[in-house]
Amino acid sequence: MQLPKKNKQYLLKSRPKGIPCRDNYELKESVIKPLEEGSFLMKNDFISLDPAIRGWMSESEESYMPPIELGEPIRSSTLSTVIASKNPDYDVGDLVLGLNAWEEYTCLNTMRHIHSFATKMPKNLGVPQECLISVLGATGMTAYFGLLELGQPKSGDTLVISSAAGAVGSIVGQIGKIKGCNVIGIAGSDAKCKMLKDEYGFDEAINYKTFSDRDSLSKRLNEVCPNGIDIYFENVGGYILESVLDNIAEKARIIICGMIAQYNSSQELPGPSNLWQLVVKSAAIKGFLIRDYVDQMDSAVVELGTWLSEGKIKNKVHIEYGFDNIPEVFLKLFDGTNNGKLMVKL
Amino acid sequence: MQLPKKNKQYLLKSRPKGIPCRDNYELKESVIKPLEEGSFLMKNDFISLDPAIRGWMSESEESYMPPIELGEPIRSSTLSTVIASKNPDYDVGDLVLGLNAWEEYTCLNTMRHIHSFATKMPKNLGVPQECLISVLGATGMTAYFGLLELGQPKSGDTLVISSAAGAVGSIVGQIGKIKGCNVIGIAGSDAKCKMLKDEYGFDEAINYKTFSDRDSLSKRLNEVCPNGIDIYFENVGGYILESVLDNIAEKARIIICGMIAQYNSSQELPGPSNLWQLVVKSAAIKGFLIRDYVDQMDSAVVELGTWLSEGKIKNKVHIEYGFDNIPEVFLKLFDGTNNGKLMVKL
Repeated sequence: MQLPKKNKQYLLKSRPKGIPCRDNYELKESVIKPLEEGSFLMKNDFISLDPAIRGWMSESEESYMPPIELGEPIRSSTLSTVIASKNPDYDVGDLVLGLNAWEEYTCLNTMRHIHSFATKMPKNLGVPQECLISVLGATGMTAYFGLLELGQPKSGDTLVISSAAGAVGSIVGQIGKIKGCNVIGIAGSDAKCKMLKDEYGFDEAINYKTFSDRDSLSKRLNEVCPNGIDIYFENVGGYILESVLDNIAEKARIIICGMIAQYNSSQELPGPSNLWQLVVKSAAIKGFLIRDYVDQMDSAVVELGTWLSEGKIKNKVHIEYGFDNIPEVFLKLFDGTNNGKLMVKL
Repeated sequence: MQLPKKNKQYLLKSRPKGIPCRDNYELKESVIKPLEEGSFLMKNDFISLDPAIRGWMSESEESYMPPIELGEPIRSSTLSTVIASKNPDYDVGDLVLGLNAWEEYTCLNTMRHIHSFATKMPKNLGVPQECLISVLGATGMTAYFGLLELGQPKSGDTLVISSAAGAVGSIVGQIGKIKGCNVIGIAGSDAKCKMLKDEYGFDEAINYKTFSDRDSLSKRLNEVCPNGIDIYFENVGGYILESVLDNIAEKARIIICGMIAQYNSSQELPGPSNLWQLVVKSAAIKGFLIRDYVDQMDSAVVELGTWLSEGKIKNKVHIEYGFDNIPEVFLKLFDGTNNGKLMVKL
């Protein structure tokens, strides 16, 4: 195969304040250099757009991963095909789930890029490619380990999920139904609420925009969850967490995997004022990263893949097309106009 | 024995705003009625003064116990002697650890008082009576189960304790030392910090009043805990929790048993703005009540009693005298002038 000569990349030009804008990026064309010994070249087929990317754009003293440096390409999960290799572990044609960037091609030397990863994906799973970067990728793993390991759901438990129509939330809810939970989703529009019930089989859904403060949302949760909330899967932050804390059951488990409300805030938001409820209810708030469960990922992929092929889990993806559209598509995460796991196919 | 005819009680006259004052109480003399079948009369020897009492004085929609009603005696832990009984389970002379009130005598019918408890204490433990209502009572149990069950301390762990010179905190630290932890106490004066190191064997102590905002305390904690904080025993709330969250280690356990900073606040304080650190460090905040561990209390009393008699735990009590002084002594909890577990001997 004739190797491509030029690469297109989006670099981080300045750190966004609030919601990112086009000025924060620089579109750059660069020359692809010949491969060194040990490195391999991937064509990025899918760019995954996730809230975490917004976090990496900020300067943060301490996070689970360093921020993207100014002038560096925007870090992003990707599904890629190896098109050239001088690395014995990667062959041309291999399908790779990785942490690459908003760029058409990524050259990786696994010895050097300590923050990257490049997991070879099986080709015989019989699922569409986009599943590998959604329900069987980081999104599905986040839902799977968060709910099952930290949430420890039991049949009959009441499970509440914020950002429930989002990529992670919708899978959490469906796994919850498989485990026999009473599943309530919180989302930002009536259309999303309808989708949660009609398409994903949630038992109930609440449009938080019609309950726009702690007290009214708290009251609504009390109506919907009269026996209290056993598990809460937190994706949002802000007053929704307070409303949930007002309604937790004994021994409740609150799982935090992200707080999208906070990513675009220029200052840190105050935390919940009613943490005391954790004492009253002997409850816990637990944070996690999927890298804690690296050694269980193979079996998770098998179980999720089985549920998927049996139709027990629906995987909704929102695919947009074209490299140049990445920055604009990314914004859909923040105005809530994406409908399923957001990605761009190059 | 000639039974007493009159009782003295402090009733809750009005709910305090902020720190309680004398106007919130009414001193009342009442006649002690003849015993009904099934009831027994206790002389309250020790009244335990704890931060939780302040919480019970407030009207709260939901807590682990209902608030004290206006006109009711102030609920309080007590160590009492049975002086008359028409109940087959309680004999004259029995020593009872109970949840009675700020009153000289308490008549209890165990069938009726669902929020009370009356645990007969062994008389042959060979420890001073005040130990039964401190290190072997609710205070010690809170320290014991909070640290050992929720904190899961391992040798070499870094354990940080706020309100470290307080009744619970000082026992937590000493159990931490028994378990091989590196123990750091946070307290409100240099004298208390000196005591933590000299008398209780803490490895380090921080006077938070000399680091009076999140950033300066966070920096100090980083110096003292360069490898991060594995366990934090939270008694305070406010910015101290934020400073600790800035410094937690991977898989940290934060244990909340009370937040004294919040009891006297007329409005709810904002929670920590950096809960996100729980995700970054795969950490957890856990609340608990000692009633979760009722079935393990006997063995806890034995283990704590052994440590006490071996000199591995020092039990510091601050005893004041006289029924009429209870309201004034209670305030020592809030201005920090108590020196050990606070109680009044009648």
